[in-house]
Amino acid sequence: MNSTRIVLGVEYDGSRFFGWQWQTRQRSVQLVLEQALSKVANHPVAVICAGRTDTGVHALEQVVHFDTTAQREMDAWLLGGNCNLPDEVRILWVKPAIADFHARYSAVARFYRYVISNRSVKSALSVKQMTWCYPHLDADNMHKAAQYLLGNHDFSSFRAQGCQSKSPCRMVYFIDVYREDDRVIMDICANAFLHHMVRNIAGALMAVGTGKQPVAWLPSLLAEKNRKVAGVTAPPDGLYLGGVFYPEHYGMSKNIIFTRLPSDARRFD
Amino acid sequence: MNSTRIVLGVEYDGSRFFGWQWQTRQRSVQLVLEQALSKVANHPVAVICAGRTDTGVHALEQVVHFDTTAQREMDAWLLGGNCNLPDEVRILWVKPAIADFHARYSAVARFYRYVISNRSVKSALSVKQMTWCYPHLDADNMHKAAQYLLGNHDFSSFRAQGCQSKSPCRMVYFIDVYREDDRVIMDICANAFLHHMVRNIAGALMAVGTGKQPVAWLPSLLAEKNRKVAGVTAPPDGLYLGGVFYPEHYGMSKNIIFTRLPSDARRFD
Repeated sequence: MNSTRIVLGVEYDGSRFFGWQWQTRQRSVQLVLEQALSKVANHPVAVICAGRTDTGVHALEQVVHFDTTAQREMDAWLLGGNCNLPDEVRILWVKPAIADFHARYSAVARFYRYVISNRSVKSALSVKQMTWCYPHLDADNMHKAAQYLLGNHDFSSFRAQGCQSKSPCRMVYFIDVYREDDRVIMDICANAFLHHMVRNIAGALMAVGTGKQPVAWLPSLLAEKNRKVAGVTAPPDGLYLGGVFYPEHYGMSKNIIFTRLPSDARRFD
Repeated sequence: MNSTRIVLGVEYDGSRFFGWQWQTRQRSVQLVLEQALSKVANHPVAVICAGRTDTGVHALEQVVHFDTTAQREMDAWLLGGNCNLPDEVRILWVKPAIADFHARYSAVARFYRYVISNRSVKSALSVKQMTWCYPHLDADNMHKAAQYLLGNHDFSSFRAQGCQSKSPCRMVYFIDVYREDDRVIMDICANAFLHHMVRNIAGALMAVGTGKQPVAWLPSLLAEKNRKVAGVTAPPDGLYLGGVFYPEHYGMSKNIIFTRLPSDARRFD
């Protein structure tokens, strides 16, 4: 039988999951998504995502593909999948893959958002969906410091010990840090990310934001290429995989934020 | 011993509570707040709120007072109270009451916000914090229809059967319906509200927004003074008590939205 490749956009609240990836006896996003789609397909389905998120990390638009021999309308995957998923995971859209599309290997860039609640009392309304910082954050200084990370660099200072990537180099296209009322938000876009890279950058920028470290700390950290100098990893609560960018010919929906990518943006090899 | 009256601003996610009010064997916001404050006071504390919210309804800023013989710094009530509260209830501020302040009887106006997620798929990130509406809503038409409710009217068409208020009349100061991306938001301010009044108005406006009913349906509903003609009560998920307004001399913090109240705004008697 012919196999078809299907692509999904998926939103989730990661606070009650042990991350994206399937692990024995743990509740993961991959597990509940494979269970839901297998029911619709009537055969076991294995899904592959663009970016594996850690325990407690959320997604505004994760991109996922799977192969199936089942013949279904796209709406059957969407409605049937969502019927079988827990409330905190939603399939946003479904489309057939074009050519050799691969959710992970075809991706050219990823965008992550980190949301900090910057007020005197922790939020009762977004307990597990924002990171709480009590001292006032200077978002302008955080933004200035972040600009030193733009470009192709060795990000060893911002890399988790257990990171399995062969290279510590990544290409960061843009980082914006800005305030919205009592929230400070960081949007960061790179070709790909090392393990804990966004949370380690957020942790360093928060130290700049509270005034514990000067703006010039960021370039010096980057130059050290040593994780031990860079301070704390920010909590997962405020972290969202915001979107994934693919070359035009794959016909994927495109978050408007990716219009800022250079025209020669290429995937990480 | 002298008794002091203390005033609190409280934020909560009502999705896992059986409303504000204490009920035997049910988890209510009042119950957990009284338990937390009693521990700090070291005597039983009874709290009174500005507006009792129903099961599943949230608060951005509920106002609460209680009387105590305990001598405590204001920060002790704030930090000690929050330590003893579940994550989804937070005391935002604490201050001593001025003169004869009463959270409920001194209130001149209340502001409620109703948030509708208007997109094809339910939100995974705000499962119990927004009401989901699949068909496209025309927020402009909803706003136009809502303007017919301004002023002092008999709101019998928007009043729950079990409502215990003596009078069906309320003074509505303003209603704004507007779109923010894929959300439609209704802000409504009145001297006070009948039981289910906000949700019944939201339900009627959603029928206008989807085109099931014309804009002119709202004034005709109002004129009928009959709950049976007005359609469905919108779900509690999207409803927030936004803030409470008190006369200046009580020195309460004031949500900027209340600057729109007329200078002669008076409490409901």
